[in-house]
Amino acid sequence: MRPEWSKNPAVVALGGGHGLSASLSALRLMSDRLTAVVTVADDGGSSGRLRDELSVLPPGDLRMALAALCDDSEWGRTWSAMLQHRFRSDGDLDNHAVGNLLIVALWELLGDPVAGLDWVGKLLGARGRVLPMASVPLVVEADVRREPRETGPGRPAMETVVGQSRVAVTDGRIEQLRLVPSDPPASREAVEAVMEADWVVLGPGSWYSSVLVHLLVPDLARALHDTTARRCVTLNLSTDGGETAGLTAVDHLEALHKHAPGLRIDAVVADPSAVEDVSELQEAAGRMGAGLLMRQVRRGDGTARHDALRLAAAYRDVFEDVFGDV
Amino acid sequence: MRPEWSKNPAVVALGGGHGLSASLSALRLMSDRLTAVVTVADDGGSSGRLRDELSVLPPGDLRMALAALCDDSEWGRTWSAMLQHRFRSDGDLDNHAVGNLLIVALWELLGDPVAGLDWVGKLLGARGRVLPMASVPLVVEADVRREPRETGPGRPAMETVVGQSRVAVTDGRIEQLRLVPSDPPASREAVEAVMEADWVVLGPGSWYSSVLVHLLVPDLARALHDTTARRCVTLNLSTDGGETAGLTAVDHLEALHKHAPGLRIDAVVADPSAVEDVSELQEAAGRMGAGLLMRQVRRGDGTARHDALRLAAAYRDVFEDVFGDV
Repeated sequence: MRPEWSKNPAVVALGGGHGLSASLSALRLMSDRLTAVVTVADDGGSSGRLRDELSVLPPGDLRMALAALCDDSEWGRTWSAMLQHRFRSDGDLDNHAVGNLLIVALWELLGDPVAGLDWVGKLLGARGRVLPMASVPLVVEADVRREPRETGPGRPAMETVVGQSRVAVTDGRIEQLRLVPSDPPASREAVEAVMEADWVVLGPGSWYSSVLVHLLVPDLARALHDTTARRCVTLNLSTDGGETAGLTAVDHLEALHKHAPGLRIDAVVADPSAVEDVSELQEAAGRMGAGLLMRQVRRGDGTARHDALRLAAAYRDVFEDVFGDV
Repeated sequence: MRPEWSKNPAVVALGGGHGLSASLSALRLMSDRLTAVVTVADDGGSSGRLRDELSVLPPGDLRMALAALCDDSEWGRTWSAMLQHRFRSDGDLDNHAVGNLLIVALWELLGDPVAGLDWVGKLLGARGRVLPMASVPLVVEADVRREPRETGPGRPAMETVVGQSRVAVTDGRIEQLRLVPSDPPASREAVEAVMEADWVVLGPGSWYSSVLVHLLVPDLARALHDTTARRCVTLNLSTDGGETAGLTAVDHLEALHKHAPGLRIDAVVADPSAVEDVSELQEAAGRMGAGLLMRQVRRGDGTARHDALRLAAAYRDVFEDVFGDV
């Protein structure tokens, strides 16, 4: 018998950037009890400039998550397009996303990041809530190891890469990920949402800099361990370039295990085109306690992007425990 | 017998800046068929920078008018406060009003100034509509004459002062005001609103740079002449400093007459404390066809600011033709 929540599960999705948006675009089709918990370590682009200039949380990943949850009406679509609009000029405003400016203004006005995000959510008629993973801006650091053939002048065998924007595009293998400060206060509302969820979804997204970082916020990591919610890991569609170049699907799971050794996983969702060895992945998932759902969740247009409906169908099956054969 | 509209007259208020906000704050108490027609000649501050950087209409006066019309609910007040919020920093965003950025983003997104302003009006639950007086950014020029004792190096007896921000604070007497371009396209919606109004209200506000400029947009001036609406001029509370330093209330009416010789006025609203010679003002008003309503419309706190309720009461009496004794 299906549990009562299965028709409208309380779901917390953790991540950042385009990966989290993809997950939310799918989850909004099957639940209106959604919470996005979003990385606040971005230091590049419009967010990085706002963070430096105004000493605020970087708003960009939060903005994208809100836009993904906007109501599908002329009202919701118009304000979402406004949030996502970027100025283009030869001057000071170039590349600033309007939603970043709006979110920061509400933070300054209301003095509370969560209250500000809730107001933007109301503006969009958002199906769910968007929360920062921590209540202070964070810096991501990664210890990176390079093969002898990859080293050279200014490219030592071991290096500490600082800042999410640099970690996301680093070459070499990330051995260890850290946050500065190392013990940031989690968002209280995010911890509560995780504790009260039916399902928690990690990924897809930049694996180290947007997904695994959530496991480095102590209170949030504890909640992810302690919650009675079940846990789903959604793997990426591509490992091209940047921080996970050369990593297999199994490597992704092992990196997760390394950064949260005791974390039990219930389900892993993967697209066949991004899995080198299915039985190896099934074993790796099994070692963490998880079943593996192999499904085409990518779009049909050849891009490495998730299709919202296909991913929603996969989540529905995971949440209803219908794994089928793999 | 009162005309049918007298309970909820269609009113068009023309002006800019704080003066127009004061007028709208009063008019919103007595009508929900309001249209603000707003100067687009600002070249200072946040508006001036946006105009230069992004080649758009200066949004600041439009933003202030929208904020004045916001719905008096938590929703309206929050978004209005957000619009009016200014960033303060040592960086690129310093002094930008968030509402200016939002309005400009909507303009870029929708490609239509009026549609963008209507969306902001919807956001605020605005009681009325805010329109630009022209559909292109304008430059104000003023020929200024100085007394011999005011001249000196770099301060000739006759000078052309360029730009609203400089005209507003110029010393000397403004002899002639011009717009560049001299024949800008009026906003079609503004012309229609004037033609269909029951009452048109000019002022208060920076007399030359925010009020009289409306008479220099040919299509708008023609509509102001041709409309069957009655016309009310609301005089300022103070002539301290800037473009009207030393001008009396009568001088204000004469400057209006000079820039729109054939314009018939029906009513003039003035505060006794800002009138030097009541009978002279009554004669000057009479020459333009107008009755004079002398009332305390300023606040009781000693500032030269209009009190919304007192000004609303004055407008009500003007619109109902109750002038009383002066």
